[in-house]
Amino acid sequence: MKFNWKVIINIQGALLMFIGGFMLLCLLVSFFYDQSAWEAILAAAGVSFTVGLITWLATRKQENKELRSKDGYLVVTLNWLLVSFFGSLPYVFSGTIPSYPDAFFESISGFTTTGATILTDIEALPKDILFWRSLTQWIGGMGIIVLAVAILPILGIGGMQLFVAEAPGVTPDKLKPRIRDTAKRLWLLYIGLTALETVLLMFGGMNFYESINHGLTTMATGGFSPKNASIAFYESPYIQYVIIVFMFLAGTSFSLTYFAFKGAFNKVWQNEEFRYYLFSVLIIILVSTVAIYVVSDAGLEKSFRDAAFQVVSVISTTGYITADYTSWAPLLTVIFFLLMFIGASAGSTAGGVKIVRHIVLLKNSVLEMKRQVHPSAIIPVRLNGNAITQDITFNVLAFFIIYITIFAVGSVAIALIGVDFMTAVGSVATSLGNIGPGLGTVGPVDNFAHLPGAAKWILSFLMLLGRLELFTVLILFTPYFWNRNV
Amino acid sequence: MKFNWKVIINIQGALLMFIGGFMLLCLLVSFFYDQSAWEAILAAAGVSFTVGLITWLATRKQENKELRSKDGYLVVTLNWLLVSFFGSLPYVFSGTIPSYPDAFFESISGFTTTGATILTDIEALPKDILFWRSLTQWIGGMGIIVLAVAILPILGIGGMQLFVAEAPGVTPDKLKPRIRDTAKRLWLLYIGLTALETVLLMFGGMNFYESINHGLTTMATGGFSPKNASIAFYESPYIQYVIIVFMFLAGTSFSLTYFAFKGAFNKVWQNEEFRYYLFSVLIIILVSTVAIYVVSDAGLEKSFRDAAFQVVSVISTTGYITADYTSWAPLLTVIFFLLMFIGASAGSTAGGVKIVRHIVLLKNSVLEMKRQVHPSAIIPVRLNGNAITQDITFNVLAFFIIYITIFAVGSVAIALIGVDFMTAVGSVATSLGNIGPGLGTVGPVDNFAHLPGAAKWILSFLMLLGRLELFTVLILFTPYFWNRNV
Repeated sequence: MKFNWKVIINIQGALLMFIGGFMLLCLLVSFFYDQSAWEAILAAAGVSFTVGLITWLATRKQENKELRSKDGYLVVTLNWLLVSFFGSLPYVFSGTIPSYPDAFFESISGFTTTGATILTDIEALPKDILFWRSLTQWIGGMGIIVLAVAILPILGIGGMQLFVAEAPGVTPDKLKPRIRDTAKRLWLLYIGLTALETVLLMFGGMNFYESINHGLTTMATGGFSPKNASIAFYESPYIQYVIIVFMFLAGTSFSLTYFAFKGAFNKVWQNEEFRYYLFSVLIIILVSTVAIYVVSDAGLEKSFRDAAFQVVSVISTTGYITADYTSWAPLLTVIFFLLMFIGASAGSTAGGVKIVRHIVLLKNSVLEMKRQVHPSAIIPVRLNGNAITQDITFNVLAFFIIYITIFAVGSVAIALIGVDFMTAVGSVATSLGNIGPGLGTVGPVDNFAHLPGAAKWILSFLMLLGRLELFTVLILFTPYFWNRNV
Repeated sequence: MKFNWKVIINIQGALLMFIGGFMLLCLLVSFFYDQSAWEAILAAAGVSFTVGLITWLATRKQENKELRSKDGYLVVTLNWLLVSFFGSLPYVFSGTIPSYPDAFFESISGFTTTGATILTDIEALPKDILFWRSLTQWIGGMGIIVLAVAILPILGIGGMQLFVAEAPGVTPDKLKPRIRDTAKRLWLLYIGLTALETVLLMFGGMNFYESINHGLTTMATGGFSPKNASIAFYESPYIQYVIIVFMFLAGTSFSLTYFAFKGAFNKVWQNEEFRYYLFSVLIIILVSTVAIYVVSDAGLEKSFRDAAFQVVSVISTTGYITADYTSWAPLLTVIFFLLMFIGASAGSTAGGVKIVRHIVLLKNSVLEMKRQVHPSAIIPVRLNGNAITQDITFNVLAFFIIYITIFAVGSVAIALIGVDFMTAVGSVATSLGNIGPGLGTVGPVDNFAHLPGAAKWILSFLMLLGRLELFTVLILFTPYFWNRNV
C-alpha cells in the first residue's frame, strides 16, 4: 500500500491555518491589557497561516481522498509535531523564551496537555503570551477528544475499541457517519464547561483573565497557570474546590458527562470505569487526608482540601498544585509517584495509562489464577458486563508493558545525562503520563528549566508518546509500517 | 476435588527431618572451630527432626498417594514457610538474633536465596551459626532447582513450560518418569560447582571456612557472606574474578551448564535466553565500566572489575558487593535499580522476573505493532525458533504485570510504615527479586536491621512471593483454589 501523502499533507496545512487563527485570538488579550507582545504573536500567526495555506493549496487537488489506517498514524503524529513547532513561534519571536529547546518543550508540553514548564518566573511574561500558553493546552484537549472518540478506536489502539460503543450517537455498526456529529457535541460540552468554570472562578473573586486561563487549562487537564505559585496563589477554599470538581470532570469521559447532562444518570452509574475512577479517587483522598493530618499541623478541612486537590490533580493528569506533596511524608511521595501511572478515564482529556486499562489488567491478573486452576477453560475478562475479546486484553497487556519499558528506558536516558535518581524517574513518569510536576528537582514547587537540553528533548518526545497512546508514534519506527507491500 | 492433606503433610514431615539433618552438619564447624553455639544448633536440629518424624509417621499410611496440581501449590508454599520457621531456631536458641522478626527474616532471606540481612556485625556471630546461615541458602538453591525443572513446569506457572523440553533427560512426552533423574543430575552438578569454587577460592588465599561459605552462597545466588564487608573484604582481583564467573554460572540454566559439561556447546549457543543473558551482561558491564571510570579515580581494570562484579551480582540476584553502586553516579543508581527487575536465567537458582520472560515481553511488544498493521493475522512470539502458544505468552504478560503491581503495592505498604521513598522502593525491589542489597538506607553497604518489624514481615512475604514465581503463593488467596467442586 502506498501512503496517501497528498491527503496527509493537506490535513497538516488545514491544521496550521487553524492554529494561526487561534493565535490571532491572543491579540484580543494584547489589546485589552497593557503588557503586550502583539507583534511577535501577529508574526507567528502570519507564518503559521501562510505556511498552512500554501501547503493546503498545493495539495488541494486529490484524485483519491481515501485515508487508510496507516495514513492515520502519520496524520496524528505529524499533526502534534508540526503544531508544537509552529506553536513555539510566539515564544521565540517575542524573545520570552530565548532558548529553542525550552520554547519547543513549553509548546509540546502545552499541546500534549502535560503542563510541565521551563519558566522560572511565569508572571514576568506578557499576558498575551501566557494566554497563548494556556490556549495551546485547550487546543490540545480538543484534539484529544476527537482522537479518543474518532481516531484511536478505528486504529484499534490499546483497547480504545472498548469505549466506542459508549460514545453518544455512535453505535458500532454505524460508526463512521456519526463521528463528526459526536465530536461536535463533545466539543460543545468542552467549550460549555470551560465557560462555566471561568464564571464560577470569577464568583470566587478571581479576575477574568486568570479565570479564563484556568478554565482553558483545567478542562484540557493541562495545568499551566499564569501564576508562579499555581493555584496555591489563591487561598480561597471556594476557588480550590471549584477547580477540584472541574479537574475531576475533565478526567471523566466526556461521553459520560454528556449523558449526565442529558439526564441519563444510569448510563454513568453503569459505567465500570467511572465507578472505579470515583471510588479510587475517594479512597486515595481519604488515606492522604489522614496522612497529611498526622504529619502536618494543618486542620482537618485543610488536610482534606490539600489531599483532594493534589490527588485529583495528579490522577486527572492536570498538574496544578496547592501544596508540595513531596514534602509531607514518604508515604505520600510514593503514592503520588504511583498515581502518575494511573491516568483518569479514557475519552477524557487526561493522559497516562487510563483507569479502564487498569481494570482490565487487574481483572485479568485475578482471572489468570483461575485459568491456572482450570487450564482448559476459556475465561475472558468482562467489562460493563460484556466479555472482551482476547485480542483486546492482549493489546492492553502489551500497552502497559511497553509503557513501563519506556519509563525504564527513559529514566536511564535521563540519568545518563547526569540527572539524579528521583528527578530522572519523576520527570519521565510525569512527562509520559502528561501530568506536569514530578519529583526531586522537578517537584511541584520547581520547574524543568535547569535540566540539560538533551533531557528536554527526550522529555518532549515522551510527552508526545504518552499523549498519542504509545502505539501511534512507536509504530512509525517499525519496518512493518513502512513495508509497501501491505 | 478434595486436597490430599495426608500426602501434603507427609512431605512436610520428610522435609523437616531433612532440615534437621542439615543442621547436624553445622556441628562439624562447631567441632573444628573455637567459637561455638553447638547446644543451640543441636537443640534446633532435635526439634526439627522430632517434629518432622512425628508428622511423617502420623501421615505415613496413605490410601491414595496421588498428588494433583492443586496439592502441589500447597506443598511448595508450606515447605518454604515451615523450613524458614524451623531454620530460624538456631538463631533463636543461640540468642544470636534476639528479635523474632529478625530471626525469621534472616532465615527466609536464606531459604529464598535472597541474601538481605538484618545483621549489623556479622563477624560477631559464632562460626557454626554463620555456616548454618550459608547453608540455608544452599538448601534453598537445591529446592529451587527441583522446583524449576520438575514442579513449576507441571503447574504451568509463568511460562515455565518453555524450558521443560530443554532439561537434560526430559522430553515433553516422557516427562514424569525422568524428573527424579534430572533433578539428581543437576544436584550433582550443583554440588560439584560448589566444591570447585571452594577449591578455587582457597587457591586465591581465602581460608577453607570462608571459601566453603562463599561457595555455598554463590551457587545458590544467595549472597550471604561471613564477612561484614562482603567480598569487598578480599582485595585480591583473582578472588573477585572467580566469584564473578561463578555468579554468572549460578545465574545460567543448570541444564545448559550440564550440556556444556557434556560437550554439547551447540545446545548452549542455540539457546536464546543464554545469548541474551551473556550479551546483556556484557553490554551493561561495558556501559558501567565507562561510567565508573569517568566518575571515580579508579583505573581501567578496577573500574571494569567493579562494574563486572556489581552487574553480575545484581543480575544473577546474588547480592555480594565489592563497591557501593549507589555512590558512583545517578546513572548507575538507575541502572542497578532496573537490573533488580531482570533476574537471570530460568532453570538457574536466580530469582526475579528472568531473562526468558523479558525476551517474550520484548518480542511480543514489537509484534504487537505488527498485529496493529495486520489486524487479521495471527502472529505468535517465537523462542528458539518455535512459536509459543498464545496462552503462554498471555501468562508471561500477566506475570510481569502482577510483578509490577506487587512492587507498587509493596512500596506503598513499606512507605506507610514511614520508610523513605528510595529505601521503600529499593527494599521491595530487592526482596521481590531475591537479590539482597537495595537502595537508600538498605543500600549495598547497609543492612535491614533498622527497619520496623512490620516492614520486615512484609519484605519476608515478598521474598517468598518472588521466589515461588508469584502464582504459587497468590493462587492460595483466590476462591478458585479453595472451591471443592473443582
